[in-house]
Amino acid sequence: MLRCIIVGYGFLGKRLARLIASGALGGVKLVGIASSKGYIYKEDGFLLSDLPDDLQSSSMLRLAPASELINKRIADLLVELTPTNIRDGEPGLSHIRLALEQGMDVVTANKGPIALAYEELMELAEGTGAMLLHEATVGGGIPLISLKNRCLAADELLSIRGILNGTTNYILSRMHFEGMTLDLALKEAQMLGIAERDPTLDLEGVDTALKLVILANSLMSMKKRLSDVKIKGITKITSEAITAAKESGMTIKLIGIADENGLRVAPKLVRLNDPICVHGTLNAVSFNFRILGRLTIIGEGAGESTVSALINDIHEVVKTRMRSNRI
Amino acid sequence: MLRCIIVGYGFLGKRLARLIASGALGGVKLVGIASSKGYIYKEDGFLLSDLPDDLQSSSMLRLAPASELINKRIADLLVELTPTNIRDGEPGLSHIRLALEQGMDVVTANKGPIALAYEELMELAEGTGAMLLHEATVGGGIPLISLKNRCLAADELLSIRGILNGTTNYILSRMHFEGMTLDLALKEAQMLGIAERDPTLDLEGVDTALKLVILANSLMSMKKRLSDVKIKGITKITSEAITAAKESGMTIKLIGIADENGLRVAPKLVRLNDPICVHGTLNAVSFNFRILGRLTIIGEGAGESTVSALINDIHEVVKTRMRSNRI
Repeated sequence: MLRCIIVGYGFLGKRLARLIASGALGGVKLVGIASSKGYIYKEDGFLLSDLPDDLQSSSMLRLAPASELINKRIADLLVELTPTNIRDGEPGLSHIRLALEQGMDVVTANKGPIALAYEELMELAEGTGAMLLHEATVGGGIPLISLKNRCLAADELLSIRGILNGTTNYILSRMHFEGMTLDLALKEAQMLGIAERDPTLDLEGVDTALKLVILANSLMSMKKRLSDVKIKGITKITSEAITAAKESGMTIKLIGIADENGLRVAPKLVRLNDPICVHGTLNAVSFNFRILGRLTIIGEGAGESTVSALINDIHEVVKTRMRSNRI
Repeated sequence: MLRCIIVGYGFLGKRLARLIASGALGGVKLVGIASSKGYIYKEDGFLLSDLPDDLQSSSMLRLAPASELINKRIADLLVELTPTNIRDGEPGLSHIRLALEQGMDVVTANKGPIALAYEELMELAEGTGAMLLHEATVGGGIPLISLKNRCLAADELLSIRGILNGTTNYILSRMHFEGMTLDLALKEAQMLGIAERDPTLDLEGVDTALKLVILANSLMSMKKRLSDVKIKGITKITSEAITAAKESGMTIKLIGIADENGLRVAPKLVRLNDPICVHGTLNAVSFNFRILGRLTIIGEGAGESTVSALINDIHEVVKTRMRSNRI
């Protein structure tokens, strides 16, 4: 059995903990959970009935940082799910470093460390023979990293073009279909929980840029940083501009592009019958491969769907470690 | 080096032979090529300059069936590319059986054997420890088989719904956008080489049904045969019906569906902003997964794109055999 600890006990952490503790994920047991409040652990594995609603309500709670749990060396796998911090990647970056240094495998949904320190972390992982999987950092549960690396490894990826942020896509879709202003569509999105109270990172294109950096570095062997991306958000897009586009069979979408000319994020005119032109909170990514040509993949880029990326990455770790008889 | 033979030397066989002989595919050498005219072989591997335009023009040609080449046991991998025969799967079925019986790995684009005898062939492969990969049988180079099996193995596939035939999609798209009749759109498609001279299997939905059987059996562990599919083609679709659909923001597409109610192929109303609603010769498949939800993948379902599926399957064989030190 692969022994797993989860650091970060919010929406994703709780869903994942329930799935593992219920036995729905073969070959894995959950031996520890940490949040900003402290951590709990149980070396023989948590059962579903052991899981607290919040760590504060657990009688087992230790008031110590997650690093202490990671350092106990009771686990083979760290699932890092603390919130994304785009300034320095912390605390996720330190958690991931600590685990990889010990040869512990890591699965994460945390964009910060992967966007800021991909090269360093991959080298660290290679050095200790640990796996670092991060499908859940981009496009929710849509397989993007594994699609290239496991299904299309023999073809060559030439460019990426995609809608990578569900919040702005929801807003632009409402502007397109209902003629709403950006402000009104944003307020609606906030009421529905689709946009955060401070939507700056989404609206300004920074979230899309982070994801683009992750895709370019992990799929095209680029060595890009956030500062290498030319970024333009959607805050200046008016309903008049979208109406004008509509009259020509097009609309405006916030698009991230990675190709031989570098990385950029900007609102772009897109034809309504372009496969990438999806609406609502959907994400869509078009890859251009040398032999295959254009391949587009579409799905929900957040929420429940992200749990799928996590369990598929965990499954890959289990499969790999069983093959090498390490668990 | 993985030693490979190609049986079937048409569009795909020639492209693939050139890629392997030019060294573009790491870890593989081409030691034999067969067509209905006979076969040629070279145990130390063909170079690009060795490849004949057609086997008849080669001075090395042996006037004997492909089975003789397979039986020489000079190769680790058979790439089976003879034309699809939906009656009995021959001659591909015999070629694949012969290879698997010897423990030779098989990569194929031939729908016949996989649609007609999937269970038998997979059992045979398991028995001898051979690999049987067939990504190229459905959706050209679009990863469908490997997408589920390598990227989403831990999630559960509940249903499949897709446009799996580029010829009929081209015809229906021309009817939708240009108001053409089916007859006219078909003639145009034939002139462009998109439709075959006898387009019956495409128009009647049989090609879509074959692909649906392959997907259901290999991704949902069903045990279906072509005769289990309810099939309705597009021959009765009028431009008036499509115009009426268009007025309601919809169009008509030939859709294959596999779910708990079984397998069926029929023309269906599809919303124009449904991600599956792609045009021209594109294929599109929506998978519904238990946790991920809906995932749609879109690309060219034939031609050059299919070469990508073949090289990615061959790459998987090379990787697997290198890991087990078999080559």
